[in-house]
Amino acid sequence: MKITVNQKNFKKALSLVEKVVSKNTSLPILNNILLKTENGRLKISATNLEIGINYIIGAKIDEVGQIAVPARIISDFIGNIIDDKVSLTTRNNILSINSDRYKTQILGFDAKDFPIIPKIKSKSLVTIPTKLLRNSLLTVIDSVAVSETRPELSGVFIDFSNDKIIFAATDSFRLTEKSVDFKNIQKQSFILPRNTIVELTRIANELEGDLVFNISDNQVSFSNDDFEMVSRIVDGNYPDYKKIIPEKFISKVLVRKDELDKAIRLAGLFSTNISDVKINCSEKGITVLAKNSDKGEVETLIDSVLKNQPFEVSLNFHYLLDGLKILDTEKVIMEFTGQGSPLVIKPNDDKKDLVYLIMPLRS
Amino acid sequence: MKITVNQKNFKKALSLVEKVVSKNTSLPILNNILLKTENGRLKISATNLEIGINYIIGAKIDEVGQIAVPARIISDFIGNIIDDKVSLTTRNNILSINSDRYKTQILGFDAKDFPIIPKIKSKSLVTIPTKLLRNSLLTVIDSVAVSETRPELSGVFIDFSNDKIIFAATDSFRLTEKSVDFKNIQKQSFILPRNTIVELTRIANELEGDLVFNISDNQVSFSNDDFEMVSRIVDGNYPDYKKIIPEKFISKVLVRKDELDKAIRLAGLFSTNISDVKINCSEKGITVLAKNSDKGEVETLIDSVLKNQPFEVSLNFHYLLDGLKILDTEKVIMEFTGQGSPLVIKPNDDKKDLVYLIMPLRS
Repeated sequence: MKITVNQKNFKKALSLVEKVVSKNTSLPILNNILLKTENGRLKISATNLEIGINYIIGAKIDEVGQIAVPARIISDFIGNIIDDKVSLTTRNNILSINSDRYKTQILGFDAKDFPIIPKIKSKSLVTIPTKLLRNSLLTVIDSVAVSETRPELSGVFIDFSNDKIIFAATDSFRLTEKSVDFKNIQKQSFILPRNTIVELTRIANELEGDLVFNISDNQVSFSNDDFEMVSRIVDGNYPDYKKIIPEKFISKVLVRKDELDKAIRLAGLFSTNISDVKINCSEKGITVLAKNSDKGEVETLIDSVLKNQPFEVSLNFHYLLDGLKILDTEKVIMEFTGQGSPLVIKPNDDKKDLVYLIMPLRS
Repeated sequence: MKITVNQKNFKKALSLVEKVVSKNTSLPILNNILLKTENGRLKISATNLEIGINYIIGAKIDEVGQIAVPARIISDFIGNIIDDKVSLTTRNNILSINSDRYKTQILGFDAKDFPIIPKIKSKSLVTIPTKLLRNSLLTVIDSVAVSETRPELSGVFIDFSNDKIIFAATDSFRLTEKSVDFKNIQKQSFILPRNTIVELTRIANELEGDLVFNISDNQVSFSNDDFEMVSRIVDGNYPDYKKIIPEKFISKVLVRKDELDKAIRLAGLFSTNISDVKINCSEKGITVLAKNSDKGEVETLIDSVLKNQPFEVSLNFHYLLDGLKILDTEKVIMEFTGQGSPLVIKPNDDKKDLVYLIMPLRS
């Protein structure tokens, strides 16, 4: 390989791609980034075997070739040099990087040892604005199960149907569902792993325009002209979560989000076990209470508008805060659906595109 | 105790004071903050037995008193409430915090169990601008020894003499000396512990005006009208470091600080043991080299102006970076004083108030 690339482009590509590089001691080749000339450009790739990323930049190619080089050192090196143009030459698995100022040799590995990032056989393509995809995934990700006891809950359920894309996540303690209007899409659904979402949303932050979904039976890819991420899909069937979203409520309360958030945080200071924050809604307002035999107690009263009868619930305050975080209206709605039924939290708007449920505590 | 305080003032006081609160399991009272009415105001105190802090705020006092309360919970609570005025009442070692919105009780401890923060018998007072003190301490702190094998090196040597305050620190691998012109001060010196400097510089960032040094035989305090920090002084005699600062140089080189810094960082990527960065200064410029049998090698050439003969030194690159960090001129001076003698780094100005030495490696 003998090529010249622009330092800024190369730096950006490396910084995006290196994020999936694992500190893998059993398979050290995964600590590397693959550099490969392809169709007159340079392809920069990394994989942790669950997620693979390719990023392609322009290059002046004098001689084709490929090499695997340690991710950390190439990324730190290119990130810190000043010269605009960087010449890359390989010989005997050594990458030479030269310019007026620098003479560098980085010891690499045979590109043949680098795992192949699969190409997805196109089954179905959907083009979606990057920003919309990112925001939808970030809205629901906190409800994804962290434990792997039920693998099918370890990702976000993405459902294309009825002129909508639905993003749903639950860890069986709470549930978030976000829907986005989207015309003319082919009916299908899959579960996207949590780790893929973490990487994708981080990388999507630096991408513009649209991303193309390409879905096969056990893999999915997201790509644009320069970038491609390939990920496994979670095996298994997502539970029929729709049936636990209550259709009616008993009481409903409207409250300023910032005031409720503050009151819950204060109560959280006095919470030892996860359930000892009480929310009492009555005509005089919402009282948030917590009591702890080691620390003391707090009681906060905030203004609210109650519809129908007073009610009281005990909840994990972290779940309440997570729910409020994803709502972006000044006031929010809490719906009480009965003791033993979920508490529903919604933004105070007419869009009906977002619902957050906290399951009742079984005591 | 029955008092009313302003929430913002109380919040600021708690956030400054709580920083010295240790997570002390053998003496749990140290996890608390002492609240005490004093001369018509409220004194907020914390100590880790090495450093004690008092911060005084205005208060409307209906009934004098004192209580020790867990630092974390009072600080988090007051930091998160909205009300402007906070009423504090104590009874049976319980602190009640009440306002329109909140009813809170925090379980506290008997103030009598809280350690007394000593008052220093005034021996000598020096008033110094807070900003000047902070900057001088931050300039030298990186050279303070982290290891406690030589306790006298575990702090900054502060020397009042000859119309100057001198701040010096060394861990025997490198040395920083910063001097500040200061008329009419009484001759004396002491060693200020590293931890005290860390806390003092952090707190000084939020203070304005001057601080008064009050020095006794084994303690020192820094104070203004609202604030006081009392610290132990390091026992022992500071070594006569002046004799290792070279008076003459053999060669001298002038170089842009940012370029030298970048080149050293790049070389650092290829450094395994701490000494394998080579700096070669000749007529054609400075060459920074590093070579590593596992990773590869790098050689960077940067422009410089050399006076006298070429030279080459091998150095710990971290020490070089630490030295460059504290110089605030665009170009910097390196002075070679012979193999086996220190390398001297200075700002490129006429002030002669700052010198950084890297000791030669003994190989």
